[in-house]
Amino acid sequence: MAKDFPSRAENYAQWYNDLVIKADLAENSAVRGCMVIKPTGYAIWERMQSVLDGMFKATGHVNAYFPIFIPKSFFSKEASHVEGFAKECAVVTHYRLKNSPDGKGVIVDEDAKLEEELIIRPTSETIIWDTYRTWIQSYRDLPLLVNQWANVVRWEMRTRLFLRTAEFLWQEGHTAHATQEEAIEETLKILDIYAEFAEKWMALPVLKGVKSPNERFAGAVETYCIEALMQDGKALQSGTSHFLGQNFAKAFDVKFLSKENKLEFVWATSWGVSTRLMGALIMAHSDDNGLVLPPKLAPVQVVIVPIYKKIEQLAEISEKVNRIRKELEDRGIRVKYDDRDTQKPGWKFSEYEFRGVPVRIALGPRDLENDTVEVARRDTLEKETLRIEDIGNKIEHLLEAIQDNLFQKALSFREENTTAVDTWEEFNDVLEKKGGFILAHWDGTAETEQKIKEETKATIRLIPIDGKMEDGKCIYSGKPSKQRVVFARAY
Amino acid sequence: MAKDFPSRAENYAQWYNDLVIKADLAENSAVRGCMVIKPTGYAIWERMQSVLDGMFKATGHVNAYFPIFIPKSFFSKEASHVEGFAKECAVVTHYRLKNSPDGKGVIVDEDAKLEEELIIRPTSETIIWDTYRTWIQSYRDLPLLVNQWANVVRWEMRTRLFLRTAEFLWQEGHTAHATQEEAIEETLKILDIYAEFAEKWMALPVLKGVKSPNERFAGAVETYCIEALMQDGKALQSGTSHFLGQNFAKAFDVKFLSKENKLEFVWATSWGVSTRLMGALIMAHSDDNGLVLPPKLAPVQVVIVPIYKKIEQLAEISEKVNRIRKELEDRGIRVKYDDRDTQKPGWKFSEYEFRGVPVRIALGPRDLENDTVEVARRDTLEKETLRIEDIGNKIEHLLEAIQDNLFQKALSFREENTTAVDTWEEFNDVLEKKGGFILAHWDGTAETEQKIKEETKATIRLIPIDGKMEDGKCIYSGKPSKQRVVFARAY
Repeated sequence: MAKDFPSRAENYAQWYNDLVIKADLAENSAVRGCMVIKPTGYAIWERMQSVLDGMFKATGHVNAYFPIFIPKSFFSKEASHVEGFAKECAVVTHYRLKNSPDGKGVIVDEDAKLEEELIIRPTSETIIWDTYRTWIQSYRDLPLLVNQWANVVRWEMRTRLFLRTAEFLWQEGHTAHATQEEAIEETLKILDIYAEFAEKWMALPVLKGVKSPNERFAGAVETYCIEALMQDGKALQSGTSHFLGQNFAKAFDVKFLSKENKLEFVWATSWGVSTRLMGALIMAHSDDNGLVLPPKLAPVQVVIVPIYKKIEQLAEISEKVNRIRKELEDRGIRVKYDDRDTQKPGWKFSEYEFRGVPVRIALGPRDLENDTVEVARRDTLEKETLRIEDIGNKIEHLLEAIQDNLFQKALSFREENTTAVDTWEEFNDVLEKKGGFILAHWDGTAETEQKIKEETKATIRLIPIDGKMEDGKCIYSGKPSKQRVVFARAY
Repeated sequence: MAKDFPSRAENYAQWYNDLVIKADLAENSAVRGCMVIKPTGYAIWERMQSVLDGMFKATGHVNAYFPIFIPKSFFSKEASHVEGFAKECAVVTHYRLKNSPDGKGVIVDEDAKLEEELIIRPTSETIIWDTYRTWIQSYRDLPLLVNQWANVVRWEMRTRLFLRTAEFLWQEGHTAHATQEEAIEETLKILDIYAEFAEKWMALPVLKGVKSPNERFAGAVETYCIEALMQDGKALQSGTSHFLGQNFAKAFDVKFLSKENKLEFVWATSWGVSTRLMGALIMAHSDDNGLVLPPKLAPVQVVIVPIYKKIEQLAEISEKVNRIRKELEDRGIRVKYDDRDTQKPGWKFSEYEFRGVPVRIALGPRDLENDTVEVARRDTLEKETLRIEDIGNKIEHLLEAIQDNLFQKALSFREENTTAVDTWEEFNDVLEKKGGFILAHWDGTAETEQKIKEETKATIRLIPIDGKMEDGKCIYSGKPSKQRVVFARAY
């Protein structure tokens, strides 16, 4: 296992891809652009789901499920939505196969053509707002705070495991409100939840902000996002929360009787994070030795490896391990004891290091004598010998320290790789030589944004919320600007 | 709300459909045959998922995720599988829409035709066994115990909410084993898990057995199933577990090096339960007053309703309710306190009765004086006044009693509606006048089974496992038989 893949410095893209595959997280499938999420990867995704789901429920949201199919005509109802999604969707045209006349395999039965084609959802605003029309009559039916865990399909041409796949898993929240203020409040509340999840659970510092019109979700009035910085200096959009105004309510004729007895269009939000977060998690913390997982999301937090020469020693070691294990499990720590005799300790050490288990405990004959264990942490690769007494408490604190260290390390990296520039030359220079987030003035026009993108491949990742107001000149056009925005090349 | 729907005796099918819709469990969507699972319904499904997922994991299974798309050619690789599924599948033929030349809406872009059509998975044996080929090389890679929670699509012509829909949610387990014995053992282990879940959690007694060849899963060597009896005397297949032999390993060339260093085909199982269980749950226990939910799966187990004339009384009642609530919640009981002043207690009583909340607690001024509450149970509609002292313990036992009563009631119903018959006349007579499970001798041939189905619409639901061996004569052909099988009309 382990080291037969490039380092980050050699080839970051290949390092990532090899890591995902060799660590058994995911792989490409027989279907172009679709991945198989393997058990090891899925276990991390399950933990993410469970935490996020809890956060949504704690803020009053409920889950539901809407059809995977969207009638083609629904797409045309919201003008910018169809523009954004029509070019990359899977279309179902028939509902039956039949035996091929040449006796070889099956072919599409042309007699089973659908009257109206069905699109596999790339996102569900249209089918959901068509449904909400019958759910909402009065202000008493509002707010409607619904989330869905689902698969969606966007026909991406260039795909990368977790980061960009034709089919991916996600959650999509779709809420309906009586007032604009309440809908905006919801949009921002979710943005905060996403940021909290990224920082507290993924140990991933994120910037919060609003997208420029060019980068806005197709159909939104305003798109808010969290953006994280990867180790190669590229940005990764990690979650978006959209204030949809009354766009979808108007497109699908969803009105409610207000407290004042007036018929009004409903206000909407939608928001989502996806299996792309898996990509962010892997990219943000892992190193040339393999995966590094933050303890809070690691399916196995502590692995225990026995070290012995003769098989008789194993029983004695195992007895002690079981006591340690119980002490850890009683504190809710997820432990694996690898007492396989088919592999040597050294092999196990490098295996679990590669797979990113946050803490490794080794226990050999000398430890038995001294009542100690050897504890290695994955983030720093440091080892120390600890007395077994009070081991649960020690390991619990170590896991917290690792979680905190990963966050601080990523935060320092982001700070070191965030540069304010004032001229076009500086901008290009930093972009080429350093990368990262670049804080620069922008004249606020879509034209300038587009030009910058064409010339440098850098995009405006976000306009900071509550960012410092500061007079300046657009790095590209020289026109006046009131606030720096965040540029970067992005995934 | 409530009573504006037919009784079970008047129109069982309509009763079911109205109940599902009026209790906000699910509804039909704009897409033919696809349902929307509403938050109330989805909350029950989430509880089912969580319990089943725990049972799978406790027996060593892990979750993963495979693509929703299956290349058309994969279907042809297992002969009986394609026969079984080709006739009812959604086919993706294109990957892009474009603006219509007439400026109205969007049309399929014929330039974006797929080289090979993709089928939306009706079940995932083919794509999974194509994947397993690279996962399995040696006996050390076995067993592979993988489950997937996913949506699937079968293009059903006649659909019914939860019971039969074009898209449905399910779990599908796909395991790989080194030996036939181990694969059969797995098939039966899962059958036991399904039966335990149905009986202990859904309060639904089930028969366990094996399907006749006619009713076997397309591609299986043997299909095991659990069958439940609904209140209209029709059977509902509630879960299936298939021993697939080496059929899919051969179709997808999945071989492993055995301990004896021989290259052998892998043995397989697959098994699934779906949102159909929701239909079973609703149909099995509910009555003419509405939904009845077993406490273990009810999202709200206890609702508390305050009764007061003046708003000042509410504060005092609420204070006591909060103490009761805490006592219940400390025991893990799911409680809702409905102190809305927009609805009268009577309205709330009938609302929660209709929605199947297992226990209702009412608390009024007289209860405050006497330190009592009025407790009503949904299953029997009985009410009693209880002293508040030790209320947590009392309610916990009441919930257990309700769970048990629902199971016993359903079991008695099944026993009363299980009839052994020995002649063709008797068979038809029972089928027409009584319905239910009919135990009868069958000659073991597909021809007889088919004839009986054509003439009576009754099918062999299962051949009991470990059923009593008993010489007899086939009710249809008069030929000798060694064992009674279970016939019924079914959903």
